[in-house]
Amino acid sequence: MKIDIQKNIQPKAKPTDHGALGFGKILTDHMLLIDYTREQGWHDARIVPYGPLSLDPATCCLHYGQLIFEGLKAYKTTDGKTVMFRPDQNVKRLNASAKRMCIPAIDEGDLLGAIARLVKVEEGWIPDSPGTSLYIRPFILGTEQFLGVHPSETYTLCVILSPSGPYYKEGLAPVRIYVEDSYVRAVAGGTGTVKCAGNYAASLASQKESQAKGYSQVLWLDGIERRYIEEVGAMNIFFVIDGQVVTPALTGTILPGVTRKSVLEMLSSWGVPTSERKITIQEIADAHKSGVLDEVFGTGTAAVISPVGELRWGDLSMEIGGGKIGALSQKLYDNLTGIQTGKLADPFGWVYEVVG
Amino acid sequence: MKIDIQKNIQPKAKPTDHGALGFGKILTDHMLLIDYTREQGWHDARIVPYGPLSLDPATCCLHYGQLIFEGLKAYKTTDGKTVMFRPDQNVKRLNASAKRMCIPAIDEGDLLGAIARLVKVEEGWIPDSPGTSLYIRPFILGTEQFLGVHPSETYTLCVILSPSGPYYKEGLAPVRIYVEDSYVRAVAGGTGTVKCAGNYAASLASQKESQAKGYSQVLWLDGIERRYIEEVGAMNIFFVIDGQVVTPALTGTILPGVTRKSVLEMLSSWGVPTSERKITIQEIADAHKSGVLDEVFGTGTAAVISPVGELRWGDLSMEIGGGKIGALSQKLYDNLTGIQTGKLADPFGWVYEVVG
Repeated sequence: MKIDIQKNIQPKAKPTDHGALGFGKILTDHMLLIDYTREQGWHDARIVPYGPLSLDPATCCLHYGQLIFEGLKAYKTTDGKTVMFRPDQNVKRLNASAKRMCIPAIDEGDLLGAIARLVKVEEGWIPDSPGTSLYIRPFILGTEQFLGVHPSETYTLCVILSPSGPYYKEGLAPVRIYVEDSYVRAVAGGTGTVKCAGNYAASLASQKESQAKGYSQVLWLDGIERRYIEEVGAMNIFFVIDGQVVTPALTGTILPGVTRKSVLEMLSSWGVPTSERKITIQEIADAHKSGVLDEVFGTGTAAVISPVGELRWGDLSMEIGGGKIGALSQKLYDNLTGIQTGKLADPFGWVYEVVG
Repeated sequence: MKIDIQKNIQPKAKPTDHGALGFGKILTDHMLLIDYTREQGWHDARIVPYGPLSLDPATCCLHYGQLIFEGLKAYKTTDGKTVMFRPDQNVKRLNASAKRMCIPAIDEGDLLGAIARLVKVEEGWIPDSPGTSLYIRPFILGTEQFLGVHPSETYTLCVILSPSGPYYKEGLAPVRIYVEDSYVRAVAGGTGTVKCAGNYAASLASQKESQAKGYSQVLWLDGIERRYIEEVGAMNIFFVIDGQVVTPALTGTILPGVTRKSVLEMLSSWGVPTSERKITIQEIADAHKSGVLDEVFGTGTAAVISPVGELRWGDLSMEIGGGKIGALSQKLYDNLTGIQTGKLADPFGWVYEVVG
């Protein structure tokens, strides 16, 4: 795929205080755009100065939400290389989201190459302080202009980049999670397994209400029986029960996280027993009561590993780990970020080097 | 609410062939914009020339789908008045959608007045052929620029107008509807009762697959037991069984349609028995088998009344009405459109006159 590059002749000042980066607030100087029409397929890949999209008010995505996205990260390694973490998984998942939302697939190799090209152009924006990275946000919007409900015939894929610090203000400090028992995130036959905009909009009310109660995020239960644990919206969830690591199985309502997959593979390589299965919230409460709920942690691209220090389910507050990150959570975090930043060898082939 | 008006000095040619209008393809010369910030609330209402919105690629609605909309219609009456049909219901429902999606409420009187002002400016765009109207599309988008998931702190409300013909190409000819048994539209605790963008994006795959089989739309079943009838995405659904009119009750997953409400009120005024309750698809199949499924019709702002000529449920094809619109469906259509266009008196107080 040919990529035109138009350099930004008015680059912004890069942030020097990496501790104040926050998440997803600062955007870099360039973006990648690729258009789709039925006649030409995905075409006209171009890296251009970062700037506003001009959208007719009748653009269908603003009304009917045909919007999908991905999130991945680039790092500057200790030996000065620029790498991305498992970007093949993200372009593959973008196409899975596209299929569910009636958006045409894009060639995964082409897209991966184009993202790498953009990251190379913006290499100077990759922060290198501990816990920082260049967050990569590809997204696709339906761009046809009409008010009848049908899939768009035209699309734009856009990739923007943001130098970012930790996702959670708490960093690796344990977060407090509220078990949602009123709102529902997803149900089989819906869109829970894909990264579409609507899933996130639907989650805001629950998040807002739980934050008002002092919790960082909510843990979603299944939409039918309201007892099986699903995910945390921005993260998948893991439990260490009596030395065994369990996480909800991908039964059609949960996002298949890249970090989730990496954690399962890493644990297997260490010989730690893992299980992907249905888990009720009652089982977790019982394990807590019995004193065998050793650790709880979330996994996600933005936070990598996020220890959970409290799970609140109705009137029951489950304190976990005594306010500290668990040993396994810490080991996973150290190994994942070690591989991501090149401090540790990569026996899994997860690291993708961005070359010139 | 003060409204600034900036006239479009390059108005487009208005369509003269009303038979070719289609639905939602042609937009008028002006649009209404109102902004929201925490400090100023909803402010800066302005009618400006129709033109593109400039959105930073990190605008949150493009990623997390904080997008809601409404649909209503203006008509030119036989005696030359400009009217809207129950616009108070739409601004009220817009606020209900806003609440679910963490968008700040707007003063309903202010918004209604501003929409009326826009319609007045564009009065010359209202088509007057049978079955035509000026479709009014208010929508709200979250406009803050960030990649973390949280409710936007800023919003824009936009209203655009489209002179439109019938929503369905078939017009009042009966449509074929496919009973969806795989995908799910909504579940209690989700967003099924509001007009948010994500609901529509989620429905596209089902719609595309059913259209490939020759059906216009799908009839959604509940997401839990997959046997209770919900709605048709673009319409609510009514059944006439042995002289009794039944429609699914508003149990938390169905959009409360303005036309649905109007039909129920109109039928009551005629002394026709109606019932809002849970209805299984099996009950409809049984009624069809017994020969008492007299009529099936959809109700919605876009289509008003849309007779259903076939319901397909798995291997069972239920033919309804012998390819013709039923007597009650026709009477409802005639009375609703008669009131809307001023041909009939309005005993309900549904018509809102747009004055200068």
